[in-house]
Amino acid sequence: MQRRRFLVKAGGALVAAGVTAAVQAPNVIAQPKFQWRMATSWPPSLDILQGTAMRFGKMVTEMSGGRLRVDVYAAGELMPALAVFDAVSKGSVEAFNSAPYYWAGKEPGMQWFSAVPFGLNAQGSYAWYHAGGGAAIMEEMYKAFDLVPRLGGSTGVQMGGWFRKRIDSLADYKGLKMRIPGLGGKVIAKAGGTVTLIAPGDVYTSLERGTIDATEMVAPHDDLRQGYQRVARYYYYPGWHENGTTVEMTFHRKAYEALPVDLQRIVDAAVGMTNTTMLAEYEMKNALGLQRLRAEFKDKVEVLRFPPEVMKELKRLAGEVNLEESERTPMGKKVFASYTKFQALIQDWGRISEAAYHSLVVG
Amino acid sequence: MQRRRFLVKAGGALVAAGVTAAVQAPNVIAQPKFQWRMATSWPPSLDILQGTAMRFGKMVTEMSGGRLRVDVYAAGELMPALAVFDAVSKGSVEAFNSAPYYWAGKEPGMQWFSAVPFGLNAQGSYAWYHAGGGAAIMEEMYKAFDLVPRLGGSTGVQMGGWFRKRIDSLADYKGLKMRIPGLGGKVIAKAGGTVTLIAPGDVYTSLERGTIDATEMVAPHDDLRQGYQRVARYYYYPGWHENGTTVEMTFHRKAYEALPVDLQRIVDAAVGMTNTTMLAEYEMKNALGLQRLRAEFKDKVEVLRFPPEVMKELKRLAGEVNLEESERTPMGKKVFASYTKFQALIQDWGRISEAAYHSLVVG
Repeated sequence: MQRRRFLVKAGGALVAAGVTAAVQAPNVIAQPKFQWRMATSWPPSLDILQGTAMRFGKMVTEMSGGRLRVDVYAAGELMPALAVFDAVSKGSVEAFNSAPYYWAGKEPGMQWFSAVPFGLNAQGSYAWYHAGGGAAIMEEMYKAFDLVPRLGGSTGVQMGGWFRKRIDSLADYKGLKMRIPGLGGKVIAKAGGTVTLIAPGDVYTSLERGTIDATEMVAPHDDLRQGYQRVARYYYYPGWHENGTTVEMTFHRKAYEALPVDLQRIVDAAVGMTNTTMLAEYEMKNALGLQRLRAEFKDKVEVLRFPPEVMKELKRLAGEVNLEESERTPMGKKVFASYTKFQALIQDWGRISEAAYHSLVVG
Repeated sequence: MQRRRFLVKAGGALVAAGVTAAVQAPNVIAQPKFQWRMATSWPPSLDILQGTAMRFGKMVTEMSGGRLRVDVYAAGELMPALAVFDAVSKGSVEAFNSAPYYWAGKEPGMQWFSAVPFGLNAQGSYAWYHAGGGAAIMEEMYKAFDLVPRLGGSTGVQMGGWFRKRIDSLADYKGLKMRIPGLGGKVIAKAGGTVTLIAPGDVYTSLERGTIDATEMVAPHDDLRQGYQRVARYYYYPGWHENGTTVEMTFHRKAYEALPVDLQRIVDAAVGMTNTTMLAEYEMKNALGLQRLRAEFKDKVEVLRFPPEVMKELKRLAGEVNLEESERTPMGKKVFASYTKFQALIQDWGRISEAAYHSLVVG
């Protein structure tokens, strides 16, 4: 499709180029155009995650009147799921949508922007990021990789995972083979478990065959689609290791900086909007998933709370793991100090607001 | 300031108008321009509310490259705080930022988009609005007033209010003179209280003189700025009547529809972004406010939890009030049915996710 365009030279002179076939709207004319590719780490089956990325692309394209078009690709379409960081860092593609804890090997501090065992829930994470100094630290952390990061949507509180055996005390973790990545995995290892990292596509079979005893994944909506309810009896809550996992939309620095300011702000707002909309979708679909689990699998699955004594022990081990991991790099120390201070600050307020809401208002 | 403009005629022909003095950026040229005024219901002293409105205006102006400029006015600058609905409905100004429960006299159903006694918190409200059908009902409800509504930011869980007397049982509400608007006020009236509606600016003096025995307002950050800690000893939680009060950014229908699609989406995203950023700011500043209250006023103020028995009774009365109010209009019935169904749906999931997070993870 040809459109009338004006290319603006540095001095401000206008040069007309191209021929107007049809002017579609006042906003699609007379503008330089940018075309971005965004690679995600999600298979299409993770429909809320991938769907949010698709809507982000559509939103940016619409808001910019087509001046910045963002085409979104699922894991495997352009590259493997976890190749996206390096590809965007090098500038092979302009944008990615993934989760910062996948990059712990590059910089352990990045994990604090995704999920921290016994860390903040979604509301707390966004409060820290938007109002508590988190955004500036994330920006600084990614700069070393030629990346401009923005905190994306959240899954909300995840589940603790699927287990083929009951967990009645911390001793039950001894020798337990569990698929659990990241900081949570290090906590389970400290508790005596054997941690494995199996690709999501192989988890069902591993559970079924007993190659592993347990796995964590997300929460009812995503988990039921994987079929874990058919191969593991005990579904534990809460997801102490992922209390409000947040994802990221991250851009190649030169690509982002090449945009005029209005397009930069459009990109920022489109990411910002996903903070609420993705969480909203997860809340509703997890509620529906849980309802379905209770109705259709009530003889096959027990939804169980981790015993408070086990939680207490895991919390102690998580405190050790979080500190150890953070001390590996200067950026890790910096993010840990900021996050931990903020978490302590909002604890008292959280107790008389959100916690009291859940215990006294919902009841 | 003059800029080169192109006015697009219906047939697609381009007509140049105006003279370029200086081209500032590729994005500020060749576009029709819109200038909106947004009137808010907030005095500048409600700094998070008014600050969010100001940033919304700035964000839209930047995202549109100046094609849509939104100038924001505090309560009283253009009109009184609660005149904004009618003014925008008539089209005297293009936009307002206020809270839907102020318009209960026009349509009782609007209250469900702000605060419902024993209703949803911020996360739940956004889940219902964005993913549970709330947005479509709000759109329908406002259409009768020539308005296009968008759900704005949230204060999070508010406090129960400031009391000069202790509340130990429901009987303590008998004869209690309390400033509390909306559905919450109707609950207090049912409990035997005398409900008054004093303008925020007069509340401090009324409390000091004993003209009223109690008031609700917002939460530590805003309340401390009003000085209530000097004239009332008991600060109760949780705010069962406002569990996650949401505000609105609402537009005159013709003004909104006159925008090209890109500018409409820019407006939508800028509102959507405030869902997270305003709540984030409230969370952090309320935590700081509570910290200050505990440190500086620990001999003067007792932060107290409503007794569970009182909460149980208030919940029963709230159930009656919410139903009665909703039955006054067809739209009230419609919104009540949708909201109540959604609230019931997410209750089980909330119990094993957010509630378990607060009781077991934060601990």
